[in-house]
Amino acid sequence: MKTKPYYTHRLRVRYAETDQMKIVYHANYLSWFEVGRTEYIRESGYSYRDIEEKGFMLPLTNASLIFHSPALYDDEIEVRTSIENLSPVRLDFYYEIYRVAEQKLLVSGKTEHVFTNMELKPIRLSKMFPELYSCLQKEYESR
Amino acid sequence: MKTKPYYTHRLRVRYAETDQMKIVYHANYLSWFEVGRTEYIRESGYSYRDIEEKGFMLPLTNASLIFHSPALYDDEIEVRTSIENLSPVRLDFYYEIYRVAEQKLLVSGKTEHVFTNMELKPIRLSKMFPELYSCLQKEYESR
Amino acid sequence: MKTKPYYTHRLRVRYAETDQMKIVYHANYLSWFEVGRTEYIRESGYSYRDIEEKGFMLPLTNASLIFHSPALYDDEIEVRTSIENLSPVRLDFYYEIYRVAEQKLLVSGKTEHVFTNMELKPIRLSKMFPELYSCLQKEYESR
Amino acid sequence: MKTKPYYTHRLRVRYAETDQMKIVYHANYLSWFEVGRTEYIRESGYSYRDIEEKGFMLPLTNASLIFHSPALYDDEIEVRTSIENLSPVRLDFYYEIYRVAEQKLLVSGKTEHVFTNMELKPIRLSKMFPELYSCLQKEYESR
Repeated sequence: MKTKPYYTHRLRVRYAETDQMKIVYHANYLSWFEVGRTEYIRESGYSYRDIEEKGFMLPLTNASLIFHSPALYDDEIEVRTSIENLSPVRLDFYYEIYRVAEQKLLVSGKTEHVFTNMELKPIRLSKMFPELYSCLQKEYESR
Repeated sequence: MKTKPYYTHRLRVRYAETDQMKIVYHANYLSWFEVGRTEYIRESGYSYRDIEEKGFMLPLTNASLIFHSPALYDDEIEVRTSIENLSPVRLDFYYEIYRVAEQKLLVSGKTEHVFTNMELKPIRLSKMFPELYSCLQKEYESR
Repeated sequence: MKTKPYYTHRLRVRYAETDQMKIVYHANYLSWFEVGRTEYIRESGYSYRDIEEKGFMLPLTNASLIFHSPALYDDEIEVRTSIENLSPVRLDFYYEIYRVAEQKLLVSGKTEHVFTNMELKPIRLSKMFPELYSCLQKEYESR
Repeated sequence: MKTKPYYTHRLRVRYAETDQMKIVYHANYLSWFEVGRTEYIRESGYSYRDIEEKGFMLPLTNASLIFHSPALYDDEIEVRTSIENLSPVRLDFYYEIYRVAEQKLLVSGKTEHVFTNMELKPIRLSKMFPELYSCLQKEYESR
């Protein structure tokens, strides 16, 4: 993991997530990234559910993935998530996905987000929800 | 098809919809049922999108599926949808899914729905949205 | 839970599993049923992954769901799974899905399966894989 | 579209593809890219199903997406697909996703693939399946 601190979340590959190549269908890694950043944000003091209930969202503007090696059905998986960039208007996450058994890196990637209101209009998080911004900044700066 | 009229919609199996048994993952048939009833409702004169924009929804209360034979990747599929029951407060659909090539029945099933407002509270469609209710009734009674 | 013993598995609702009704999209409950029976089988002594590696599968022949109340994003969920019927050629599971916070029943349902080889031809599990059949029978009879 | 020729495929947004932001869940665009390249390859003379039946696969090594504007439930969508790079050992696709109604660009992206056998070992397509390689090269060079 290039950036620190990172948050680790474990999950197990579901049958529903495989395809007929007998590996995990690639789009599912984006869902696992989502689980990773949800748990990361929860650790920082707020749940993403709370954030939406307060009227804010974090839609994606960019995503990229590198597929090193495939995850397989029933594998125990570790998603490592860190903040790569933070500003008052945007937030980038970096992820690494490992098979727990051999600590083998399977997928790495990045998602870029903007802070918006419920109508998807960009907002300054530092102004609109300073408590959350402080929490995220603390995580980011502790790297 | 036991009930008439039915509406036919065609789709092609996506790689994302397969699993490592090299067949379509069974939960996807519920999504195809959804596509079937969406197109059925559109035929009757309203899009389901319009219905939600007017403040009404059709959440499911029950679903059942019989898996006769599996759909395979890249198969051309036909979803046949009909209304099985209609009342001012609820609506049941019946579905049959065929592989087009041999007109082979793959899956049949049923979904049961209630009419609700956007807070998921049951409503009487015949009173709240009589135009839509008439359209559905016309389809139902033409059987 | 009508039948005993049941196995309990917990999971958290992912954003990917919601739809624009702001509830869990109904097809996902079938995936959670799958997670439930996977963990049930693992408890009985074999992983479903092992079973497929030995050349056997458990495809579905029927599924049914009753939707009592919707699961919501980020809910902690409990899937309770039990065997409802077992014979040398087939296996039925019964499931109940609860929101952990209020122990509220959200969804109940059933899936029916046949034992097959990798070409989806029915087999007698009691003959082809008697060790697994004994494990399942022990669970089933302890009810 | 930067590269020519491109192949156009239309689809309609399913309810299953939305999330509680009331937009299409971002991972689904990767599935639409998959549909786009499947139809592109079909146009070039082979179905991807045929390719797998001959013993070859095209797993992803990289993917990237730019989210310009969200797709909404029931939108009619156009996926434009072109080959960005082709060599005997790899193949890159570029995609643009439009809402048909206003010809508005919603998402663009790229997927990079290697040619492999069924054990996911890299192969030279030009040697192992020269007919397919010629077809792809003809498309690529006609730009």
